[in-house]
Amino acid sequence: MQISKPPLALQRDLGRLLRPDQVSQSLPDRLSYGRDSNSKAILWVRHNRLKYPPDVIVWPESVAEVSRLAAFAQAQGIPLIPFGGGSGVCGGTWALRGGIALDLKRMDKIFKVDTREMKVRAQTGVNGEILERQLKRRGLTLGHFPSSIYVATLGGYLACRSAGQFSTQYGKIEDMVEGLEVVLADGQVIQVGDVRESPGAFDLKELFLGSEGTLGILTEATLRVHPQPETDSYLAFGFSHLEKALAATRELMQRGLVPALVRVYDELDSLLFTSGVDGSKDSYLDLLSRLMKPALRWAKDASFKIALKHASWVKPLLEWLPTSCLMVLGFQGEATLTSAQARLAREICLGYRAKDLGEKPGRYWLQHRYSVSYKLSPLFDEGFFADTMEVATTWNNLMPLYRAIRKALSEQALVLAHFSHAYEEGCSIYFTFLAYRDSEESSETLYDQLWDKALRACTEAGGTISHHHGVGVLKAAYMRKEWGEAFGWLCNIKNKLDPKGILNPGKLGFDQGVKREA
Amino acid sequence: MQISKPPLALQRDLGRLLRPDQVSQSLPDRLSYGRDSNSKAILWVRHNRLKYPPDVIVWPESVAEVSRLAAFAQAQGIPLIPFGGGSGVCGGTWALRGGIALDLKRMDKIFKVDTREMKVRAQTGVNGEILERQLKRRGLTLGHFPSSIYVATLGGYLACRSAGQFSTQYGKIEDMVEGLEVVLADGQVIQVGDVRESPGAFDLKELFLGSEGTLGILTEATLRVHPQPETDSYLAFGFSHLEKALAATRELMQRGLVPALVRVYDELDSLLFTSGVDGSKDSYLDLLSRLMKPALRWAKDASFKIALKHASWVKPLLEWLPTSCLMVLGFQGEATLTSAQARLAREICLGYRAKDLGEKPGRYWLQHRYSVSYKLSPLFDEGFFADTMEVATTWNNLMPLYRAIRKALSEQALVLAHFSHAYEEGCSIYFTFLAYRDSEESSETLYDQLWDKALRACTEAGGTISHHHGVGVLKAAYMRKEWGEAFGWLCNIKNKLDPKGILNPGKLGFDQGVKREA
Repeated sequence: MQISKPPLALQRDLGRLLRPDQVSQSLPDRLSYGRDSNSKAILWVRHNRLKYPPDVIVWPESVAEVSRLAAFAQAQGIPLIPFGGGSGVCGGTWALRGGIALDLKRMDKIFKVDTREMKVRAQTGVNGEILERQLKRRGLTLGHFPSSIYVATLGGYLACRSAGQFSTQYGKIEDMVEGLEVVLADGQVIQVGDVRESPGAFDLKELFLGSEGTLGILTEATLRVHPQPETDSYLAFGFSHLEKALAATRELMQRGLVPALVRVYDELDSLLFTSGVDGSKDSYLDLLSRLMKPALRWAKDASFKIALKHASWVKPLLEWLPTSCLMVLGFQGEATLTSAQARLAREICLGYRAKDLGEKPGRYWLQHRYSVSYKLSPLFDEGFFADTMEVATTWNNLMPLYRAIRKALSEQALVLAHFSHAYEEGCSIYFTFLAYRDSEESSETLYDQLWDKALRACTEAGGTISHHHGVGVLKAAYMRKEWGEAFGWLCNIKNKLDPKGILNPGKLGFDQGVKREA
Repeated sequence: MQISKPPLALQRDLGRLLRPDQVSQSLPDRLSYGRDSNSKAILWVRHNRLKYPPDVIVWPESVAEVSRLAAFAQAQGIPLIPFGGGSGVCGGTWALRGGIALDLKRMDKIFKVDTREMKVRAQTGVNGEILERQLKRRGLTLGHFPSSIYVATLGGYLACRSAGQFSTQYGKIEDMVEGLEVVLADGQVIQVGDVRESPGAFDLKELFLGSEGTLGILTEATLRVHPQPETDSYLAFGFSHLEKALAATRELMQRGLVPALVRVYDELDSLLFTSGVDGSKDSYLDLLSRLMKPALRWAKDASFKIALKHASWVKPLLEWLPTSCLMVLGFQGEATLTSAQARLAREICLGYRAKDLGEKPGRYWLQHRYSVSYKLSPLFDEGFFADTMEVATTWNNLMPLYRAIRKALSEQALVLAHFSHAYEEGCSIYFTFLAYRDSEESSETLYDQLWDKALRACTEAGGTISHHHGVGVLKAAYMRKEWGEAFGWLCNIKNKLDPKGILNPGKLGFDQGVKREA
């Protein structure tokens, strides 16, 4: 692998703004910051071919330093890419045009936990799990539990409009924000929000939330917190069909229930999940292997790879297996309310002739809820690659969208899905797909093909291309399609706020990412 | 009263875009559209001195016509002022520079009630009560019940970020919106939103919601709806002090209860309200008179006017009266959840040694909830004037804000307040103030003085100057103070979207309203 040398003057210039230990142009650092947790980036790492390293990494320690860095970057026309935990999966931190990776993790102060107003103010570099533990010590919770919680930072949450596993009760991260501190491209520091009801027009927070560093750099946020739930209650039900499980979910949401968790697994995902609950092992690979045993051998066996290479073979096979759809439900909070909600939820589900599976599947889920993310990576060792795609749409459109994306992917990959993050008006679908190709090139080509097919299918079926992973590079080409005319209008705002285009260029479809092959 | 003649060419030009019955320059029409429900506008009407009539009124019947009108107005540089029910109270529809009043009430179609996705799409000219009745016929509700519901239009709701009486459960209007159709200043029609989770960055809906016609004209909206509640439960409690009642409210909200209604009346408002519940009459004036009887005679009596003229006399008097603070609570929805919530709420309130007052006060409130608005106007006959002011802040700051605004007003007016629209992080305060002056000029001067004092006090005490009435002209001068640096930034967006400044000029503080005295 050849990585072009960065301009030496850059380190010297930045050395005037920061201490030496806050600036690095070392190759290991540049390589570390040239990737995120996107599956293609994982393939690059495995094949020693990282493509988009930044020229330099900086570790500011205050908003004043971030401000100076932005002013410098704008004056010099150098890209500036905010960086948190690197747990993004859409290439949102790739340094497509080199430039400065701005790691915010040294800005990790938790300023104030206000137990009377139930809010916390923190710097955006704070790690998600650390923030949650600090709150827990005071009997509080943010209620935000993304599977990336051990890695991700608050800034990453905000930049990508992250959703936690209990979002149905606590909201997505954007629903928790009372105020933001933002450094604009010219170094100006602005405060937006801080009371939910601002006067008159506009909620400016909504511009910056999800902007992935393209409009400004988020340095601090004030977030609502909640008491640690007094109690929780988990339920699970088996439905004869996916449609029935989803109809029940819709009814739960529209009759005013507020579950912390409602997840419906499609037939294949139900089978995998259930075999996990019944068995003693918890690895996703194990689950996969359990499923495949009747027909295929262990994942290392070539036949499984071959099957995946021609994934369409697997489909009819799966249709023979006895399946049902699993729903896992969780309620949290006051004992009185939790039990009343659980009672009503049970009544609704039984109305759909669902089988009551008790609390075990929910408790199993709770215990293993962060495991999956860490079990996908070993699959890459075997030459597989896996990825996830989260889309969303309204209830009427949910099954058509599910079928369209499944169809688009399943000729070349094994596809499973669950439905989570339910709303009164619709729901998100979380696809996992697993594919296999022999060489690096064919893997990347297949990966790009799969995503292009899936995104096209999603757009055509009227889904939104991202529910909570963001857009980054991965989905950038489809932003214009989804936003329609309003996209040009977004670009106006981008141009106004970032006239030189230095803020995380190439992301969100604002401009074409110049592919700078090493 | 002299009203300047409008340019004749205008009617002729507009006659090319619309049918003759869609355009009027008649004086009665111009006068009707030269006011809203702001108290000063009511004074003007009473004194035959309307100040800001539009030059012409148009009644478009389709978005295409609105688009043509906008393109025309922009080409000619003529102000364009969207107009709904005229129920605004902040001067948001005053034609400060003349121009075209764009009445949207003929665009009142309810397109589609989707009982599966639980949403409705409607044109923004539809009346609030009519929309609600149409939904009710299908077993649904929007859950939006502002006191202006019989007058206001959907467009007015959206333009001012309106809150209904059950906002604590259903949210403010902006929380109900899935999508908007907007006509921009140049006539371009854009769709924003339509799925709650748009990809990546930005929620553009948030720019137009609350923009009071200054950024675009809202012509259609898709809104979430809910099943008609199966049951409701009303509770009321008497607290020894306002602080205790508010502490209980905070706890209710932060422990995860979702009341449809939670209202806390301050001592004076409690006294008025309670005398209404106990008595047989429902007029606010009657209630006031009941209160005043021990010391003052009937409202027509000069002594009451004199007392109000020197309102500071009344204060010590009130302190002698035995008072307590009333909380009215309402829960709606599924029977199971409603009763569980009511049980927990009662437990919490009794923990503050509140007196359980049963369901009667709540039922009384429900029955009379739209009456007050219609009972204020007769006060003007007697030479009084009354107005309301709704502010909001976080819990820690709630009592300081209450005291600051009360102090600012109470030297010259009788002030009462209730606390409603509660959130986990804070609450809104709704002040009613009543004052008296002999002449038109002194009334207006006093009115302006009172508002200036109150807005200054609010800003200095860290409150937000508007919770759900909007900003209009009334609060425009304080927008910059509240938004700080970000306001210049809002102005950039305004300039971009409305380069000629034709969209409802003089509102929201975007520019100085040129006072065009007749």
